[in-house]
Amino acid sequence: MRTTVGIIGAGPAGLLLARLLHRAGIGSVVLESRDRAYVEHRQRAGILEQGTVDVLREVGAGERMDREGLRHDGIELRFDRRRHRVDFPGLTGGRSVMVYAQSEVCKDLIALQLKEGGPLLFEAQALGVEGADGDRPRIPFRHQGREDVLECDYAVGCDGFWGVARGAFPAALSRVFERTYPYAWLGILADVAPSHDELVYARHERGFALFSMRPPVTRHRPSEEVASLPVESFVSRLYLQVPAETDADEWTDDAIWSELERRSRTDDGWRLERGPITRKSVTPMRSFVHEPMRHGRLFLAGDAAHIVPPTGAKGMNLAVGDVVTLARALVHEKQTGSPDLLDSYSATCLRRVWQAERFSYDMTTMLHSAPDGTPFDARLQQARLERIASSRAAATELAEAYTGFPLG
Amino acid sequence: MRTTVGIIGAGPAGLLLARLLHRAGIGSVVLESRDRAYVEHRQRAGILEQGTVDVLREVGAGERMDREGLRHDGIELRFDRRRHRVDFPGLTGGRSVMVYAQSEVCKDLIALQLKEGGPLLFEAQALGVEGADGDRPRIPFRHQGREDVLECDYAVGCDGFWGVARGAFPAALSRVFERTYPYAWLGILADVAPSHDELVYARHERGFALFSMRPPVTRHRPSEEVASLPVESFVSRLYLQVPAETDADEWTDDAIWSELERRSRTDDGWRLERGPITRKSVTPMRSFVHEPMRHGRLFLAGDAAHIVPPTGAKGMNLAVGDVVTLARALVHEKQTGSPDLLDSYSATCLRRVWQAERFSYDMTTMLHSAPDGTPFDARLQQARLERIASSRAAATELAEAYTGFPLG
Repeated sequence: MRTTVGIIGAGPAGLLLARLLHRAGIGSVVLESRDRAYVEHRQRAGILEQGTVDVLREVGAGERMDREGLRHDGIELRFDRRRHRVDFPGLTGGRSVMVYAQSEVCKDLIALQLKEGGPLLFEAQALGVEGADGDRPRIPFRHQGREDVLECDYAVGCDGFWGVARGAFPAALSRVFERTYPYAWLGILADVAPSHDELVYARHERGFALFSMRPPVTRHRPSEEVASLPVESFVSRLYLQVPAETDADEWTDDAIWSELERRSRTDDGWRLERGPITRKSVTPMRSFVHEPMRHGRLFLAGDAAHIVPPTGAKGMNLAVGDVVTLARALVHEKQTGSPDLLDSYSATCLRRVWQAERFSYDMTTMLHSAPDGTPFDARLQQARLERIASSRAAATELAEAYTGFPLG
Repeated sequence: MRTTVGIIGAGPAGLLLARLLHRAGIGSVVLESRDRAYVEHRQRAGILEQGTVDVLREVGAGERMDREGLRHDGIELRFDRRRHRVDFPGLTGGRSVMVYAQSEVCKDLIALQLKEGGPLLFEAQALGVEGADGDRPRIPFRHQGREDVLECDYAVGCDGFWGVARGAFPAALSRVFERTYPYAWLGILADVAPSHDELVYARHERGFALFSMRPPVTRHRPSEEVASLPVESFVSRLYLQVPAETDADEWTDDAIWSELERRSRTDDGWRLERGPITRKSVTPMRSFVHEPMRHGRLFLAGDAAHIVPPTGAKGMNLAVGDVVTLARALVHEKQTGSPDLLDSYSATCLRRVWQAERFSYDMTTMLHSAPDGTPFDARLQQARLERIASSRAAATELAEAYTGFPLG
């Protein structure tokens, strides 16, 4: 099998890259180890930066997002039983974010790719990348029980933190930067309308809590008398800081709701609505960067190169930034013959990656209780939150970072 | 001996408090354990926030400061061999700072106090504070070989971190918040004109360096032929991050200059001027807050209640904020009989104290190399500096904090 750009992984990075290349007339093949249903239902964060929203619209993948996604113009910080709203458009000159799940982004991009893009192979497991430092990298893979090889001009690892692409970098070239956090998130989905219409980030001495939602999906009532009346089905997504290595089954539904209530209490009597919990899972927290993001004709994009803790909602947005930068560089090379932008790909992406790492680290450490945290640390967290609540400059810095760092 | 307000310590806090009270017609006595020469020559940081400058002018202690102090409209951040200037007035709507040493502030306030204020006793060592929770606190002290007691309506501990006043708080009431840093500052004074006209804060993988100055003092030349011609005597104040517990004598002059050069190198060829080193000392780095700052009729102000690492130049400015708040509360009580402002003194000061603690901690950890720092930490430091250099909001947040948080 031969193509111009061989893409490993059909997450948002790989799918969007294939889409961008297709529109520029550059051929690609996407190899995805999982099946389509898995990719379309993988639960991940779903906060799209302004720039991500713009790109999805530009490539024709914005229609359902604009219909079903929720535009959010701010977040609420909750601490010391008080509430402080950060007004994104007011602070950034009009920028906002969109709540739209990563799985929905993937569905939209998969549909487009299958309709009019290059090959997208599910259950096609890449086994590695060979000859990245030569002229023609090769990606051996296993598909439908047989082994094959994808030959390409450029190979791109969009295969996530556990993928094979990063392993093709020579050890002497790779530098890894990482930090693990001594806590994790217990996340739940609950069939109940969200108790607040924007995300609530709550700092409490017992730990962090996050109140979020999935956009309402229109369903039809099963009962006969109102069969024709659609009803909006709200889903709350709620998170609790728990110790690392927590087993989600240790937590009863009642214990989860009680703890969420405890950490979200305000002096103005805000109420958390309870509902049936339909899913529970634990997400570990990690910061990770692999430098560089390019070796010869092999490029890394998204989680294959960097991980952020979820507090800043930056993961998917960084992946989008990487592939927009890479597509631009490949188009530039095709049109002008100049490898300049390919040569600067790693440095360009890493500048933005490190800003997102910094922001995600700061949001995380400002809001979580570290098990080894001192009373001094707790007072500093409180002072940081009060600073954001009292200084327009500090709030603007946060709003700029949350709605997204500029591309390139 | 009797007075209305008994003040322990003739540093900037105690002296300014006495001055503020004198102007409001409230009597005070200041007890200082050291002699006058010691207080007037104690070397400390000398960056006055805009609010500190305003207060000193208001109490009539601004004349020499305005003549000899250096108004600074910015600082330079140096990292990655690059230079970035933070423009204070441009970012804050006109605010700046003044470089004028703490010892000079003390000289000016001592002269005023001796001329027209209440008693100021040098070599008068307070031994403690008794009866703080009663109506009439007592400060036993030793002066000129004999023991005496200062009876007062209010006692104020302006006696620094090692003072006796804090010890009069019941243990059950006191909460201490602290952090020590695994590094210190080796500071030098050198008889050479500063190499840059504003302060330079340099981050280098080998450690932090700070390039600062004392205002030029007009001296007369000793030589006969030009005896009548005054010459400006420049003094550079330079600092190097060194491991905690370093002995200043371990460092030769040549080693100091070489290390300062190494950490300040830029791609645009900036040059550090060398000169004779006239003084060397090591300053430990510590963050410390004692809560509350009031017990009954005993109040703490300045270093007696809180210490910041010197990186943010906040120490003296916090002391000034405390005593301005306290003087206002005492005047309010005298004029209206209401203890409201005295009752809120501790909470009012602590809000500002914690903002300064946060800022000082952030400046310190952004610029110093921690001996246990990881490569991830180093990249975060770099990203923080790049953020300040690229975001007006981030630079404004720093400029606001550096030029001073609002009083009360």
